[in-house]
Amino acid sequence: MSNSVEALGSSVIVQVGLIVRDIEKTAKAYADLFGVDVPQWSLTDPEEKAHTRYRGQPTEARAKLAFFRLGSVSLELIEPVGGPSTWQEFLDTNGEGVHHIAFHIKGMDEQVALLAGKGMPLVQRGEYTGGRYAYIDGSAELKLILELLEND
Amino acid sequence: MSNSVEALGSSVIVQVGLIVRDIEKTAKAYADLFGVDVPQWSLTDPEEKAHTRYRGQPTEARAKLAFFRLGSVSLELIEPVGGPSTWQEFLDTNGEGVHHIAFHIKGMDEQVALLAGKGMPLVQRGEYTGGRYAYIDGSAELKLILELLEND
Repeated sequence: MSNSVEALGSSVIVQVGLIVRDIEKTAKAYADLFGVDVPQWSLTDPEEKAHTRYRGQPTEARAKLAFFRLGSVSLELIEPVGGPSTWQEFLDTNGEGVHHIAFHIKGMDEQVALLAGKGMPLVQRGEYTGGRYAYIDGSAELKLILELLEND
Repeated sequence: MSNSVEALGSSVIVQVGLIVRDIEKTAKAYADLFGVDVPQWSLTDPEEKAHTRYRGQPTEARAKLAFFRLGSVSLELIEPVGGPSTWQEFLDTNGEGVHHIAFHIKGMDEQVALLAGKGMPLVQRGEYTGGRYAYIDGSAELKLILELLEND
């Protein structure tokens, strides 16, 4: 097989995800750093709509999200809310800091299977309006978590 | 004063820096992930040339660096080598993971002073061929380290 079917379908970082304890406070600090308005945070959809699965099980976990556009990359601030999730697990284990880098891909199931075959298991997945996401545990090989984003 | 003189001179992320224990092993994992060649690592310049200062003191610390071009952002793998540094401190405290996000700026001294005034002190600085860098401890406010890069 060629590399094209053995490799991730993108090598363009579109997002850096940062876990924080207080999204309003940290969003204000970044707004001050860059001299821009403080973005409004939004809450991820509930499990009934997002079909959130953490380590294979449905979870009530949600997150407050706020975004800064920094060139071609978005900085995503994430405050975990209730229920077990990769976000809460990271905060409990590592404290605040960079949780993931994200890539837009096509063919979610194939990409998740490809990475699982490379020793990078799926940790969490869910849906948002117009697409779906998967967090992949690359901590052993890549030293970070990957997020795959597939928009319809 | 307007925001333009109170804010960082750039809001475009140019680099994500990842601290690793074994740069050859991790570079191979990323090359496999993206289906690209394994990049050669290079060693940062010695203190005599780079004028490396860590918490205000000269340090013999160096680092092995390897880069992946991921869209408009470079992923920088960093393996600390000998001597106290922000790289070694991060590895000792946090283990492997994302150490910094970097921005190209102009007017290094002014930008370092601006950030110090916002409660984000300089941690390490040094020079490379054609420019200079500074690591800023944004852990309290921003939950990560900033790297400022100024090319001549």
